[in-house]
Amino acid sequence: MVEIKKGLEDVYVKETEITYIDGQLGRLYYRGYSIFDLAEFSSFEETSYLLLYGTLPTKNELEDYSNKLRKYRTIPDNLKTFLKSLPTNLNPMDVLRTSMSYLGMLERGNDPDAQIRVIASIPTIIAYYHRITDGLEPVEPSEELGHAENFLYMLKGKRPTKEEANALDKALILHMDHEMNASTFAAIVVASTLSDLYSALVAGIAALKGPLHGGANYEALKMFMEVGDPNKAEEYVIERLRSGKRIMGFGHRVYRTYDPRARILKNIAREITKNTQYETLYEIAERIEQAAIKLLSGKGIFPNVDFYSGIVFYALGFRPEFFPTLFASARVVGWMAQVNEYLKENRIIRPKALYKGEVGKPYKPIDER
Amino acid sequence: MVEIKKGLEDVYVKETEITYIDGQLGRLYYRGYSIFDLAEFSSFEETSYLLLYGTLPTKNELEDYSNKLRKYRTIPDNLKTFLKSLPTNLNPMDVLRTSMSYLGMLERGNDPDAQIRVIASIPTIIAYYHRITDGLEPVEPSEELGHAENFLYMLKGKRPTKEEANALDKALILHMDHEMNASTFAAIVVASTLSDLYSALVAGIAALKGPLHGGANYEALKMFMEVGDPNKAEEYVIERLRSGKRIMGFGHRVYRTYDPRARILKNIAREITKNTQYETLYEIAERIEQAAIKLLSGKGIFPNVDFYSGIVFYALGFRPEFFPTLFASARVVGWMAQVNEYLKENRIIRPKALYKGEVGKPYKPIDER
Repeated sequence: MVEIKKGLEDVYVKETEITYIDGQLGRLYYRGYSIFDLAEFSSFEETSYLLLYGTLPTKNELEDYSNKLRKYRTIPDNLKTFLKSLPTNLNPMDVLRTSMSYLGMLERGNDPDAQIRVIASIPTIIAYYHRITDGLEPVEPSEELGHAENFLYMLKGKRPTKEEANALDKALILHMDHEMNASTFAAIVVASTLSDLYSALVAGIAALKGPLHGGANYEALKMFMEVGDPNKAEEYVIERLRSGKRIMGFGHRVYRTYDPRARILKNIAREITKNTQYETLYEIAERIEQAAIKLLSGKGIFPNVDFYSGIVFYALGFRPEFFPTLFASARVVGWMAQVNEYLKENRIIRPKALYKGEVGKPYKPIDER
Repeated sequence: MVEIKKGLEDVYVKETEITYIDGQLGRLYYRGYSIFDLAEFSSFEETSYLLLYGTLPTKNELEDYSNKLRKYRTIPDNLKTFLKSLPTNLNPMDVLRTSMSYLGMLERGNDPDAQIRVIASIPTIIAYYHRITDGLEPVEPSEELGHAENFLYMLKGKRPTKEEANALDKALILHMDHEMNASTFAAIVVASTLSDLYSALVAGIAALKGPLHGGANYEALKMFMEVGDPNKAEEYVIERLRSGKRIMGFGHRVYRTYDPRARILKNIAREITKNTQYETLYEIAERIEQAAIKLLSGKGIFPNVDFYSGIVFYALGFRPEFFPTLFASARVVGWMAQVNEYLKENRIIRPKALYKGEVGKPYKPIDER
């Protein structure tokens, strides 16, 4: 009797020393370090180093690595021209996927710093197209600023506040890796044929674009906007659950308790929206959360990473269509770390399908059909 | 005790009514019809219809479908401009991957004929870039010719012979689907997030690019060229096996006997090279096959689809770097058929990784590392 493992839910495809999710306790660890510590004490630069190379960097290692990240921010001129030539109404994930494929096309596989270059380039691509669609002139990256700080600088054309840079820095750390999610697995399937780095990352972006994966943060924000008033939140949740629909940004296949990333993002969202035009959105989200937790009590369904991240990104000035690209700009680190680990003991990924049809049908000439 | 399913070798990810491989007997069936019958009696148009829609078309159905395939061959002007702007030394699979991503970026998901349009467009993209890298002006598709015939017409700028068109037609049929290979599975993983058609196909191309998958036909041809003389074939095989290396285009994870596709391709290769400059290549291949089968006797290792396909493509006028794109131009049908089937009862694909590292390491400030 053959068992069909649809969704591969309980199938282990590799051993790993990268990320550990404790779904019962609601804990997440990168290379053994708690995500709570990393979000509090670390930076995009340090945590991406940790994920890629396995250890927290020394001062010298971090400096070398950060210098490369700064240096590689500039994207090739022909990619700039390409981005400027595009219509302004495209899906930013399509633009990012095509740009990544484009970069891979031009790079002939002999750049030893390719992985660092990719991490450094993505924010530039995103900010470039964001500015273009805003009708603004793109802003060249600064080599003076940190990763998150420079990202917001390229978006807005001015240096962000320390709080803004910190909020993005932490949000990106929280999105960097999450074990065998669909986009990481897509990247690994591609890499397992010994295809190139960019091909694997293009597949990661392609998968992350899906509404069941990286598109959920936008959906959650749309829901907050639709509800519009904190006092209507409970009613909305009751109505939604009564009609058998799910609450966007709620529930996760792995976590049976509060997603630790949502816990941190909730704090970031509260801080960054305080006394701003976005404060009401936060209040709506919080009231939806309270109502949903009460109504879903005992079902192990809680906010996931997508519930509060949209508010953070929105308050930082990103348009909702760009949220999945922000997710990608962080998750690319996990894609590469997981692919690197898989390739150390590679085996091409080729599952099976169980045939249920007829075999040996006689071919009929077209006149007899 | 958790078992690691590296490569997912014996894991069934779905039920299917599309393709059945009998690895013991060396048989392959599309929708229940033997590949031997389809290669002999059918056409690219008819077999792609069969794979996509489940039945052999009636006369009217085939006419409608073929008319659409003809009509959709022309690619958008901005994609043409893009292709013409590229350096001429790029990897054609990178160009195809980027072009597919580009097409998806421009198409906003409301084209009911998107799948047919993609099948029709790929040969145009390939022939376009082939001509450009040959220093020739691209040739616009003809609406008068069959799929394979038009492909060769766009490549060469003149109508191919009936034998040439037939050889390509059959070769493409043989490459159209092969159950859960890595590229098809990559496309399914992406589609399972409810991402779009083009994203799924981009992942398919990305995976097929890998030397362990779609790149093997080129490797086999290179081997024939290197050997150079039929009389040196046996010696080459002995030497290669003695040093523990594999013979390119030999062996397959599923077939324990002669790959039926190789059987047909061998005939096509023999016919198409007869009395041409490519005849020696065929002879070398045949002698390598004989020697390898003798030496590997009892191990169940035989020529696979990649062993003779390169000779066929080469004799038809395609440069070796383009072989994987030809594979893709056919396999795209399988990617779509399998994705369509998976999405009927979708479940996002999210396997697991078994964590083997430490948990709860104390975060050390950088000065204490």
